[in-house]
Amino acid sequence: MSRGPIALDAMGGDFAPVEIIKGALLASQDFGVEVILVGEGQALQAHLAELGQKESDKVRVCHAPEVVLMSDAPSVVIRGKRRSSIRVAANLVKKGEAAGLVSAGNTGATMAAARCECGLTKGVKRPAIAQVFPNRRSGTVVLDLGANVDCKIDYLVQFGVMGSVYASIVLQKGKPKVGLLSIGTEDSKGNEFSRGVLQAMRDNAAIDFVGNVEGRDVFKGDVDVVVCDGFVGNIVLKITEGVAETVLGMMKDALSSSILSKAGAALVRPSFKRLKKQMDYSEYGGAILLGVNGVCVICHGGSSAKAIRNALKRAHDFAESDMAEQIAEKMELRSAAN
Amino acid sequence: MSRGPIALDAMGGDFAPVEIIKGALLASQDFGVEVILVGEGQALQAHLAELGQKESDKVRVCHAPEVVLMSDAPSVVIRGKRRSSIRVAANLVKKGEAAGLVSAGNTGATMAAARCECGLTKGVKRPAIAQVFPNRRSGTVVLDLGANVDCKIDYLVQFGVMGSVYASIVLQKGKPKVGLLSIGTEDSKGNEFSRGVLQAMRDNAAIDFVGNVEGRDVFKGDVDVVVCDGFVGNIVLKITEGVAETVLGMMKDALSSSILSKAGAALVRPSFKRLKKQMDYSEYGGAILLGVNGVCVICHGGSSAKAIRNALKRAHDFAESDMAEQIAEKMELRSAAN
Repeated sequence: MSRGPIALDAMGGDFAPVEIIKGALLASQDFGVEVILVGEGQALQAHLAELGQKESDKVRVCHAPEVVLMSDAPSVVIRGKRRSSIRVAANLVKKGEAAGLVSAGNTGATMAAARCECGLTKGVKRPAIAQVFPNRRSGTVVLDLGANVDCKIDYLVQFGVMGSVYASIVLQKGKPKVGLLSIGTEDSKGNEFSRGVLQAMRDNAAIDFVGNVEGRDVFKGDVDVVVCDGFVGNIVLKITEGVAETVLGMMKDALSSSILSKAGAALVRPSFKRLKKQMDYSEYGGAILLGVNGVCVICHGGSSAKAIRNALKRAHDFAESDMAEQIAEKMELRSAAN
Repeated sequence: MSRGPIALDAMGGDFAPVEIIKGALLASQDFGVEVILVGEGQALQAHLAELGQKESDKVRVCHAPEVVLMSDAPSVVIRGKRRSSIRVAANLVKKGEAAGLVSAGNTGATMAAARCECGLTKGVKRPAIAQVFPNRRSGTVVLDLGANVDCKIDYLVQFGVMGSVYASIVLQKGKPKVGLLSIGTEDSKGNEFSRGVLQAMRDNAAIDFVGNVEGRDVFKGDVDVVVCDGFVGNIVLKITEGVAETVLGMMKDALSSSILSKAGAALVRPSFKRLKKQMDYSEYGGAILLGVNGVCVICHGGSSAKAIRNALKRAHDFAESDMAEQIAEKMELRSAAN
C-alpha cells in the first residue's frame, strides 16, 4: 500500500535536471514509484519530451519558478526563495500531496526546507542525517553526518534513538546495537564531550547501547548504529569515500601495470564490477534526514539517474513504514524514563 | 654521520619481545642501524640465542626490570614503573646515550615517558602524533592522531607548524601546504572551534596555510599537512585502516568468487602485492611524536619485525636531521610574529 507519490527536487544536483528526470522515469518503470518532478515547469516538460516521454499519472510536473544554488546559504529557502523547487517539494509533503521528498541539491537548504515546512517530530530537538555504510556482513547506520556541527549531549542521545529506529527498518534488525564513536572501547577513552555523552546514553532505556566503539567497528558489522556529532560524522563520511576511491584507483593502476596483470584484469572484471557495486553508496539510495515530520532523502550532489532511482525507491519504502511514529514513541519513552 | 644508536622498547607490542628483536636484527643487517634493546636482560639474551644471535656492538641489551602493560594508564611510567623498558629507553635518549626511541607498546605510556624524560621542545605547548597517509601521488602528513583529545586553538596552530617541519623532511617538500581538516573548503564551514582555529592559522607566518580541507583531500595529495585535534585524528586513522581493510577484504572475496576470476587472480597477484605494500602503514615506519626533545617513533601494537625494522630506520634518519632545532626555530618565529 502506497501512501502517495514522492516529491523530487528536479533542479537540485550537479546533473540536474536531466539525470534527475531520468532517475524519476527509472523509479517509475522499475519499481512503480509515483513521482512529482518539482522545478521550472516548461523546462521539465521540454526535457521529458527530449527523452521521448511526457507527463503522466506516474511522473508528473509541479511548477516552481526559483532554484536554490549550491552556493546559497541554507537560510535562503526560509527568508528568500520561498518558491524554490526544494521548498515547494517540501510543502507538497506538508500538505499531504506527497508521501516523501528526495533532493540531490544543496544539503543545508534541503534540511532547512524540510524542517521549516514539515516541522520536527514530537520530542526531537535536532534532526540528523543518517546513512548506511556498507561492510562485509551487511551495513552500519552512521549519524549525524553533518546536520549539527556543534552538539549538546542530549542531541547525541536522541541521534542514538533515531538511528536505532532507522536501523531496525533498513537493516531489519529487531534490537539494533548502538555504539558511540570514540577513540577506544574503554569508558575512559574519548574527549570531555564524548565521555559526557557515554554516560547519558547508558542512562537511556530506549536503545541497546554497547558503549564506545572505534572507527574500525563501522566496517566490522558488530554494531548496527554508530553515533557521533555532525562535524566528526561528515569527516568520517568523506574520509571513507576518499579511502575507497583511492584503493580502487590504486587497484586500477596495479591492474594495468603489466601485460600479465592486464590479462588477469580481463578475467577478474566481472567480480570487480560486483565489488564496486557493493562499495557504491548510490546503491543505498542516499542519506536520510531523521527527526522531521515526513520522509526526506538527501542524495549526493553528483547523483546519477540510478542513484536518484534508488533514492526514490527508498523514500517510497520509508513512506510506507511507521518510522516517524516509532521515533515519536521512543522519544516519549525516553522522557518518561528521565 | 650517525648520532648514535636507537633505543628500542623490546617489551612493547603484541608480539614482543620476539618480533621486536627480529626487527632490530633486520634494521642492523639491512641499514646498519645500531640498536639498544631495552627490557628484561636475561630474557632478551635468551631470545637472541634462540635466534642464533648474540649481543654485539650493533645490537646490544640494556636491562630494565619492569614492563608497562597495554592496560596501564599512561601515568604509570611517571609515578609507578620508573624502571620499565619504555621509561629506561627514554632515559637513554635524555642522557644522550641513544639518538632516538622506538616503541610498539602502550602509546599513552610512550608519550608520557618521552615527555617526562626528554621534555618538550622550546616553545611547544603540547606534543602531537603525526603519520604519513599514503595516496596515489605520494603522501600527506596528518596530525594530531591522538595525543591530545581536548585541544585549545593554539595547540592546533602549533600542530600546523610542527607538521610542516616534519613534512618538509619526510616528503622532501620545500614549502609544505598546510590545511585544516573541516567539513567544507569555505571559511564558513566547520564547527565553532574549527572556525576559531582557521582564523588563528591564517595569522601564522611560519606555515603556508591553504585554509579548510575535507576528508577526501587527505588522499588527493594536493595538501601536504592536514591538521586536526587528537580525537578527530584518531578516528580518521582508524576509519582509514578500517576502510582499506574492508576494500581489500571485499577484493579477496571477489577474486575467489568464480573459476574465471580465480584464474585472473593468479595473474594479477604480483600487482596486488605491490598495491598492498603501497597501502601498508608499516612500510612508513610508524607514527612520530613531534614536539619532544628527541626522536620518538610510535609503532602499531601489532607491529611485525618488518614494521619495527622500518621504524628504526626512520628514527635513525630523523636523528640525523635537525628537525627538533627547526621546530624550535619556527616556534620562535611565530612568537615574534604574534
